[in-house]
Amino acid sequence: MDGVNLTPLKQIHNPKGDVFHAMKKSDTNFYGFGEAYFSFINKDDIKGWKKHTKMTLNLIVPVGKIEFVIYDENKNDFLNVKLSKNNYQRLTILPGLWMAFRGYNRHNLLLNLANIEHNLTEAMNIDLNKIEYKW
Amino acid sequence: MDGVNLTPLKQIHNPKGDVFHAMKKSDTNFYGFGEAYFSFINKDDIKGWKKHTKMTLNLIVPVGKIEFVIYDENKNDFLNVKLSKNNYQRLTILPGLWMAFRGYNRHNLLLNLANIEHNLTEAMNIDLNKIEYKW
Repeated sequence: MDGVNLTPLKQIHNPKGDVFHAMKKSDTNFYGFGEAYFSFINKDDIKGWKKHTKMTLNLIVPVGKIEFVIYDENKNDFLNVKLSKNNYQRLTILPGLWMAFRGYNRHNLLLNLANIEHNLTEAMNIDLNKIEYKW
Repeated sequence: MDGVNLTPLKQIHNPKGDVFHAMKKSDTNFYGFGEAYFSFINKDDIKGWKKHTKMTLNLIVPVGKIEFVIYDENKNDFLNVKLSKNNYQRLTILPGLWMAFRGYNRHNLLLNLANIEHNLTEAMNIDLNKIEYKW
């Protein structure tokens, strides 16, 4: 889907606890740093839909498993991606796409490394049932 | 301790899963973005000692509880900080200080938002017993 990138990330094994890469400034699809925040999502709960008009999201899932659904309203096209330790990639979502996500495990955590700071005027929220999708 | 800052961070309650802030570009002690990575640390395991000569670390603990010990070799001074959901702060460590950390819970995770990219020449590692500290 245009506006969406998946970048495989390194996982470095260590007997005391692994190291998982997230993002480097020199990565080819680095769009700048504005803000970093975590979002927990409970098993079977869904957060969304949300659309950013300026913010590029970089989503990484170090704990649990999260299903992301991205919707391009211009092409009426959906993309479904599940991220976890076993499919450890960075999901980059450019502005203009709708996004929602669901927790799969007991504990699920995402990190968003956003290229600009969050502000209420650039993000739109609509109820889950406003975009038809068979979860 | 000189070269160490603790910044309280916002935790936003949400019944589907909380949102925890990590860092914003506009934060007063923002030193730039170079790289982000996660480090897991098992219960009772200790990683360290490590000293960075150029990298400023911004450490955040979204999962579990981690004890950080920082050592200023010039002043022979130690600082001990435990971070967790209940003491949710960003620990900023400027270059030139030794650091080691221990896991407390079954699952412990830190995020480091570093101001430069990791490179082997700017970091020094020594064995845990090389700096005497009663863990």
